Amino acid sequence: MSKIAADPSHPRYQSLLMRHRLEEAEKKGMLAGSALIAHGRGEAFDYLLGEQTIPSALIATQQALALLSSANHPVISLNGNVVALAGKEVLHLAHQLKCPVEINIFYRTPERMEALLGHLNEIKLREELDVEILGAEPDARIPGLEGPRANCSKRGIFDSDVILVPLEDGDRCEALVAMGKTVLVIDLNPLSRTARMASVTIVDELSRVITNMNKMLLSDKVAQPGDNYQNAQCIQEALTHIATFLSSEG
Amino acid sequence: MSKIAADPSHPRYQSLLMRHRLEEAEKKGMLAGSALIAHGRGEAFDYLLGEQTIPSALIATQQALALLSSANHPVISLNGNVVALAGKEVLHLAHQLKCPVEINIFYRTPERMEALLGHLNEIKLREELDVEILGAEPDARIPGLEGPRANCSKRGIFDSDVILVPLEDGDRCEALVAMGKTVLVIDLNPLSRTARMASVTIVDELSRVITNMNKMLLSDKVAQPGDNYQNAQCIQEALTHIATFLSSEG
Repeated sequence: MSKIAADPSHPRYQSLLMRHRLEEAEKKGMLAGSALIAHGRGEAFDYLLGEQTIPSALIATQQALALLSSANHPVISLNGNVVALAGKEVLHLAHQLKCPVEINIFYRTPERMEALLGHLNEIKLREELDVEILGAEPDARIPGLEGPRANCSKRGIFDSDVILVPLEDGDRCEALVAMGKTVLVIDLNPLSRTARMASVTIVDELSRVITNMNKMLLSDKVAQPGDNYQNAQCIQEALTHIATFLSSEG
Repeated sequence: MSKIAADPSHPRYQSLLMRHRLEEAEKKGMLAGSALIAHGRGEAFDYLLGEQTIPSALIATQQALALLSSANHPVISLNGNVVALAGKEVLHLAHQLKCPVEINIFYRTPERMEALLGHLNEIKLREELDVEILGAEPDARIPGLEGPRANCSKRGIFDSDVILVPLEDGDRCEALVAMGKTVLVIDLNPLSRTARMASVTIVDELSRVITNMNKMLLSDKVAQPGDNYQNAQCIQEALTHIATFLSSEG
């Protein structure tokens, strides 16, 4: 890690820390070839948000957490970038929520699955967390998807009623919605198909979102899901925020 | 290359082709660790531009080409991503302009320099181009920069009056401007320090810009540099374009 990234007071500390985590994950074979490009796209949108949690994202985060907390079968779906960027934070969240996590990756190879499972189990042991880690032995399929990317666990993603899928692609988000699930996504691009398809769209950077959720749970600040929550309005506010940022900087 | 990327009629053909070129370049050792993340950031901004050359970018492209054509000592500075994404197109441009190119990379290692020089020389031979490729033996330094990134060639970058530096970082752009050079940049982020520092800022995707320049030269559509060219206005129009795109999609 560079000297800059080792200093938490540096204005770009968080951003450089995330890059460092991706580099480490790549060395371990956890990432797909498209992982770094996808991360760069996220960086650009986060830059346009001012690298901060905007008010509408906090509202969406609260709603998502409320839905997870009151679900019958909540689950958190993890891909390579999520494990790399916020593996520890996500396992703490799952521990607090008493819900399983499931590794569900687009480009599935035995090597990548092993690297991801190994990394998560290492964190689980070190942090002394009680979390079931699914995904190693898929025994069900998500209808409407082709090939290995449809694979999932019956008692994880398949049977879930509420699912948090950070950094998900549009096809899978759509397929999960079509299964009747409440789909909660974290996506820095407010215009993406994933953002538009989801039940709750958190337009914010992954590690900030999970940290916010963990803090809310620790401080017992989890409400009931709001009946008046308007996802389209949260997305619109993110767009307006970016447009205002562009005007003010221009 | 995937099936999709092999079909030029696919709406994402260009974008997938660029990714394919980066993958090939990475295999050859041409790229720095940050190359793919930087490309992803560019992709996000290009998405917000609608993956097209907007009118103000075309005006900036014409102005940049006019300045290159009328320069005494023009030069094109190349880094890893530029060589990977548009090496062939850039060499054709240099051939038409009768100007040298110079490899000038931020993270300079002998292996990367060799990979980049080898790739360019291969294209030069295959396309039968008459272009001097500088950078292998730097004999001058850009004032104001520290370490190997200051290295350059006396009869290339150092002595140039007009320099095209696609995808340049802010520090080097600033140092080149401080040397009194006319600095022409290609940057998809209209808010970047590079975009703001440059004499001419083309807010457009690299391969589209170079292709546009080559077409202008071939059709003899190169004017004199315009006295009334307003770079700040071109940048502002890019920002306005993105803000309008965000509103219309929201």
